[in-house]
Amino acid sequence: MDNFNFHSPTNFIFGKGTENQAGKQVKRYGGTKVLVHFGGGSVIKSGLLDRVKASLAAENITLIELGGVQPNPRSGLVYKGIEICKKENIDFILAVGGGSAIDSAKAIALGAVYDGDFWDFYEGKRIEKALPVATILTIAAAGSEGSMGTVVTHENGMLKRAANGDPLRPVFSILNPELTCTLPPYQTACGTTDMMAHVMERYFTNTKNVEITDRLSEGILLTIIKETPKALANPNDYEARANLMWAGMVAHNDTCGVGRESDWSSHNLEHELSALYDVAHGAGLAVMFPAWMKYVMHQNVMLFAQFAVRVWGCEMDFQDPEKTALQGIKRYEQFMTSIGMPIRFSQLGAKAEDIPVMVKTLGLGNKTMGSFVKLTEEDVRKIYELAV
Amino acid sequence: MDNFNFHSPTNFIFGKGTENQAGKQVKRYGGTKVLVHFGGGSVIKSGLLDRVKASLAAENITLIELGGVQPNPRSGLVYKGIEICKKENIDFILAVGGGSAIDSAKAIALGAVYDGDFWDFYEGKRIEKALPVATILTIAAAGSEGSMGTVVTHENGMLKRAANGDPLRPVFSILNPELTCTLPPYQTACGTTDMMAHVMERYFTNTKNVEITDRLSEGILLTIIKETPKALANPNDYEARANLMWAGMVAHNDTCGVGRESDWSSHNLEHELSALYDVAHGAGLAVMFPAWMKYVMHQNVMLFAQFAVRVWGCEMDFQDPEKTALQGIKRYEQFMTSIGMPIRFSQLGAKAEDIPVMVKTLGLGNKTMGSFVKLTEEDVRKIYELAV
Repeated sequence: MDNFNFHSPTNFIFGKGTENQAGKQVKRYGGTKVLVHFGGGSVIKSGLLDRVKASLAAENITLIELGGVQPNPRSGLVYKGIEICKKENIDFILAVGGGSAIDSAKAIALGAVYDGDFWDFYEGKRIEKALPVATILTIAAAGSEGSMGTVVTHENGMLKRAANGDPLRPVFSILNPELTCTLPPYQTACGTTDMMAHVMERYFTNTKNVEITDRLSEGILLTIIKETPKALANPNDYEARANLMWAGMVAHNDTCGVGRESDWSSHNLEHELSALYDVAHGAGLAVMFPAWMKYVMHQNVMLFAQFAVRVWGCEMDFQDPEKTALQGIKRYEQFMTSIGMPIRFSQLGAKAEDIPVMVKTLGLGNKTMGSFVKLTEEDVRKIYELAV
Repeated sequence: MDNFNFHSPTNFIFGKGTENQAGKQVKRYGGTKVLVHFGGGSVIKSGLLDRVKASLAAENITLIELGGVQPNPRSGLVYKGIEICKKENIDFILAVGGGSAIDSAKAIALGAVYDGDFWDFYEGKRIEKALPVATILTIAAAGSEGSMGTVVTHENGMLKRAANGDPLRPVFSILNPELTCTLPPYQTACGTTDMMAHVMERYFTNTKNVEITDRLSEGILLTIIKETPKALANPNDYEARANLMWAGMVAHNDTCGVGRESDWSSHNLEHELSALYDVAHGAGLAVMFPAWMKYVMHQNVMLFAQFAVRVWGCEMDFQDPEKTALQGIKRYEQFMTSIGMPIRFSQLGAKAEDIPVMVKTLGLGNKTMGSFVKLTEEDVRKIYELAV
């Protein structure tokens, strides 16, 4: 196990009706003039935004609304948000929505206290400070409600990049599973795929002797695999939604990633897909993850066999562990198919002839990507080809 | 799943050599005059205390030492610590040691900012504030390094009681598994028993549909069961020590307890044992837990069967789940025996004739205790008798 630092100070408020605590919590954490940041339709139509505004008003907190966040959130709205924050002396940002609204809010929070271009942080500049961000989550997926990360696409070149830093951990996150009961099946399944990827990108590691985080990871995956079909069969199954919502947070606040090297190649491979075709992040992951697994599994066949046995209930083939390992990947694909996710380019509308563009935009050049297996540009091309 | 609030803001610094960060971290969290609180021999003999003092000195932090904490920490030293804090304007408490040093430090932290008797909080007074406490942990066991709890014994009547509150979460905790490599086997095994109890007291619940915390709990238990024999066979097995140390934290910071009712009867039953005979807390738990399980298992046989199958690898008896449930309890006892723990009164030096005293000191009267099964004084007597 590697040395590590784990600091997840977010105050999680979980359960029915908890969005009505928004005003009280913003006040508790010192917010006086709040940018409420969200996407579009459902947050408004469901009445959630009105409830949140009423809760803030009850505490005499001033607010400015900034809606319009798109899936795969873009730099344009971030620049607009930063301008508002600076002009209006905003001291707190409240994201209402899913990963896109939260990630966009985190980007604004970075830019609002920085004189340069917020994009610097997405190109590797160290994050020292940000406005406090809080969240009211509406989908179990990205885990941004508990994570120190944000992913934004710059419209200049459609570059999709991540930034990470402790100041980006939300000060509080309100998680009401009821708010996720209106999600369409496709979005629910995309969320599941994203959550599973967050665990698996930590799980496949070269770090040895990490039984505690192996076991926690497997526990999260087993839960997601059990609860997702319930939520798809009955969208109003509160208990399934609740288990998925908490699983999504634990999957990405690093509870299961501490002390071990992680490998985010699949997320990076997917970012090129969703930036190019604007497909849902989860759907792109469902396509890229099995391709990546097939390509890298020989790095540690026994770890993939463990994954197959402990997570998918495969029987161990003691004479041929590779068979077991492959069966685990197959079971992942079958599960994805069963929840309505694509597993190949064609199902996603992606085209093999665009692979050179994706490889080029990813921009590895002579560098490599990943840690479990260090991927060259040539490796990346082959993985995309496995996904066709 | 029940509504919940989860707020674990402790900054965990984990790994080799991390105790040398003590001074830097105390400074970061605003400590200027520190009470360094510890037990006795090993912390001094190992040179740990000197390293910590050097680290504080390097940051020009003033310190006062208060050693002498006993296992099952007592009120006398707490009163002394509170007096020192008030007289010397101490603004930060650093516990160096195991659960006893940390729990004693938390008690001092409560009393130092309170005009009344600190014991009020152990009799149910709501905790509003405390001095900041940080920890340097030397044994994987109590979980107090990440928890909001403290257990202290009042010498007036030998009452062992708990207090809980958010201000008792340590601001930082330094966890260096190397420091646990010198632990004798008996203490290592006692720690394991305590950690497992923390999980199991959350696991056996009447709350339905808590798959995520069920699975996380099972993952922690599986890890402890796998790693403990390794640490006993080779005390210097850093990796086993590391897995156990992090498991102990996760077992008790409520990661696996959120959204579900927990039941601390076994801990309370044990407190009477250890207060009366001054036996190690873990050893007492190893005796009381199976007795409690046998007494309450009919409340939910299928949950005990799940425990047997998922944690102990028992085969499910589909015709007679009760057999499987009983087998799980048996396997727990066998594991305890294998790591050198007692499972009956006689192995502990406890006497059946003292049961009336323990029942009386527990002081239920006409009230009940616990939530999974609400235990009357008569139930308590029967459980103690099952442990004979």
